[in-house]
Amino acid sequence: MQLATRMDRLVSSPVRDLLALTEQPDVISFAGGLPAQDSFPSRASLEIPESALQYGASEGDWPLRERIAALVCGRGLQCDPEHVIVLSGSQQGIDLVAKLLVDTGTPVAVESPTYLAALQVFSLFGAHYRPFAPGQAPPSANLVYLNPTFQNPTGHCYSTAEREHMRVECARHQAVLFEDDPYHDLCFENCDRTPVVSGYAGDWVYQGSFSKSLAPGMRLGYLVASENLVQPLIRLKQAADLHSNRLAQAWVMHLLEAEHTAERVCRLQDHYRARRDHFGSVLDAHFGDLADWSLPEGGLFFWLTLRDRHADTTAILEAALAEKVVFMPGRPFYPDTRHADANRTLRLNFSNATRDDVERGLAVLAPLIRSAVQG
Amino acid sequence: MQLATRMDRLVSSPVRDLLALTEQPDVISFAGGLPAQDSFPSRASLEIPESALQYGASEGDWPLRERIAALVCGRGLQCDPEHVIVLSGSQQGIDLVAKLLVDTGTPVAVESPTYLAALQVFSLFGAHYRPFAPGQAPPSANLVYLNPTFQNPTGHCYSTAEREHMRVECARHQAVLFEDDPYHDLCFENCDRTPVVSGYAGDWVYQGSFSKSLAPGMRLGYLVASENLVQPLIRLKQAADLHSNRLAQAWVMHLLEAEHTAERVCRLQDHYRARRDHFGSVLDAHFGDLADWSLPEGGLFFWLTLRDRHADTTAILEAALAEKVVFMPGRPFYPDTRHADANRTLRLNFSNATRDDVERGLAVLAPLIRSAVQG
Repeated sequence: MQLATRMDRLVSSPVRDLLALTEQPDVISFAGGLPAQDSFPSRASLEIPESALQYGASEGDWPLRERIAALVCGRGLQCDPEHVIVLSGSQQGIDLVAKLLVDTGTPVAVESPTYLAALQVFSLFGAHYRPFAPGQAPPSANLVYLNPTFQNPTGHCYSTAEREHMRVECARHQAVLFEDDPYHDLCFENCDRTPVVSGYAGDWVYQGSFSKSLAPGMRLGYLVASENLVQPLIRLKQAADLHSNRLAQAWVMHLLEAEHTAERVCRLQDHYRARRDHFGSVLDAHFGDLADWSLPEGGLFFWLTLRDRHADTTAILEAALAEKVVFMPGRPFYPDTRHADANRTLRLNFSNATRDDVERGLAVLAPLIRSAVQG
Repeated sequence: MQLATRMDRLVSSPVRDLLALTEQPDVISFAGGLPAQDSFPSRASLEIPESALQYGASEGDWPLRERIAALVCGRGLQCDPEHVIVLSGSQQGIDLVAKLLVDTGTPVAVESPTYLAALQVFSLFGAHYRPFAPGQAPPSANLVYLNPTFQNPTGHCYSTAEREHMRVECARHQAVLFEDDPYHDLCFENCDRTPVVSGYAGDWVYQGSFSKSLAPGMRLGYLVASENLVQPLIRLKQAADLHSNRLAQAWVMHLLEAEHTAERVCRLQDHYRARRDHFGSVLDAHFGDLADWSLPEGGLFFWLTLRDRHADTTAILEAALAEKVVFMPGRPFYPDTRHADANRTLRLNFSNATRDDVERGLAVLAPLIRSAVQG
């Protein structure tokens, strides 16, 4: 049996592998990006519309596309429902855009560090990475992949000036600008969240998710694309899975119609802001001498850089696993793992563990790190 | 903007394009493969399990994987739940297998004609087709894609001898055998439906769907793979959409547990057998002098070959559209559209139109064809 050459480039996602471990009830996990279980809509049953049982349109059900267009307009991006494609989660958007634009050797500019499952997909299709630091100007590339609002993993939110600079630089390189915006609603401070693609002169794709603001188990997201890219993306969506689950589309539509969405988002922000603040105060107590970090203005993560330049967070994870505490080492988030900080960074999720587990877990983790960097 | 080279090979699926037309209520459609609306489970509401809202495992929820393994064992294929992957519809399985095995120029043996959305995916990844007639021995290839039970579009069901011959020939070529079995339950006559991959000496993938036996709007299918292929396929599934919708997984699990599945399948078979017989009798009345066909032993389609060797069913479709009747011309089902029958074949779906529409639609279509072949 001869596997396709791309399979040599496919590595398993460490997050997904770790998730398997965290299913053991006695493990304290800061690893995944799991929303809080108590943040989910309380609706416990769903009337299944008759129409949701039959095959549907590849681009999604029309009323939901209209609703998404309105939502995206509210964020400051002019949007025609015809340009909206409903996705089976926004991970699928990355697969579709990679198919659309990435051949073996295609230059793709990505933040360093960036969302690791995006790297997984772009690598599968043979991307040649041109890394840049979050917030900085991207190098020349056919495609620029960007997570400008509460970036995963760093939490960085591009300033108004950084957003404008990004538009200008991408236009100069005639790059397709691909903005991934899953954490948009999880905003804890006043900051500019206007989509970078808004007013962009070239071609672009913008995508969002209902995983963080409603529920990830639904696997429902969406993309909006510039005129030139809509039809090719719909054809790729057809080929990928015909269309997205209509039960989930009906459920999301129902929630967007029935609930006071703005109020729900406010409650969600309050909920996560309190979790962030608590997590931050426990970090202050235990990690002040060990690491540097910024308080994230949104999203689900703290990003720590250990002060010891020779620290190896992958090795520390091994020791932490033995103590039943897990986190994400920084390394897999780097397009080039030779980056100076690749081995001394780590990502901590603050949204899923209980207050008690946060206190116990960080109290276990800090001395482990302290002894590793001192040994 | 520079699209990936594969995009030159991607054509829109004509079935999906036609589906858009058939949404007009006054169009009689024999085009799609839509199950009958009155065949769907009558359950109108769903208790949403709390766990279904959170992220889940890429390979699918374990109880559903166990249930699927038991179902597949019942078909005569030994199956460990660890080897089952839940899919977002079985179209996704084709995407995953193409990613796993198809590089530009990889020889892929496919039936001629075959399922057109499989051709769409294999072409996207650059397959070099080696066509063979349904039921015949495949030529040498890395991958053999097969729809042996009530083949789409021809309805052919491989005999016991043809199944055994397929196993022997694929093993001789050391090909990966990819069996697509969406119509398994829609069986109207006694025939051997044992999976061809059962007892196959080489590597294989078998896939099935809940679209025909439960409801296509759920977009839920599954694959089972030989030991070597399971882990790479799970990694590809992660990269494609993280995991499949858990609401749909819960709904399917509930139906498989709560209903008397065997009785449900019997009712479904009776329902569709009656539709097939009625459709067949109307065809006899109108098309006896125009075309040849076999009564399908299962599945959802009649496959007609017009007697006139110069007939062009794509041109006839244009005329039929004007009369608000649609069907699928044969051409897009052929890996090589220069095949002698590519232009004089057509596929007619018998599962979705009402009895009245079948009678009216075929009464419109027959004279259209008669005048086209005489003109």
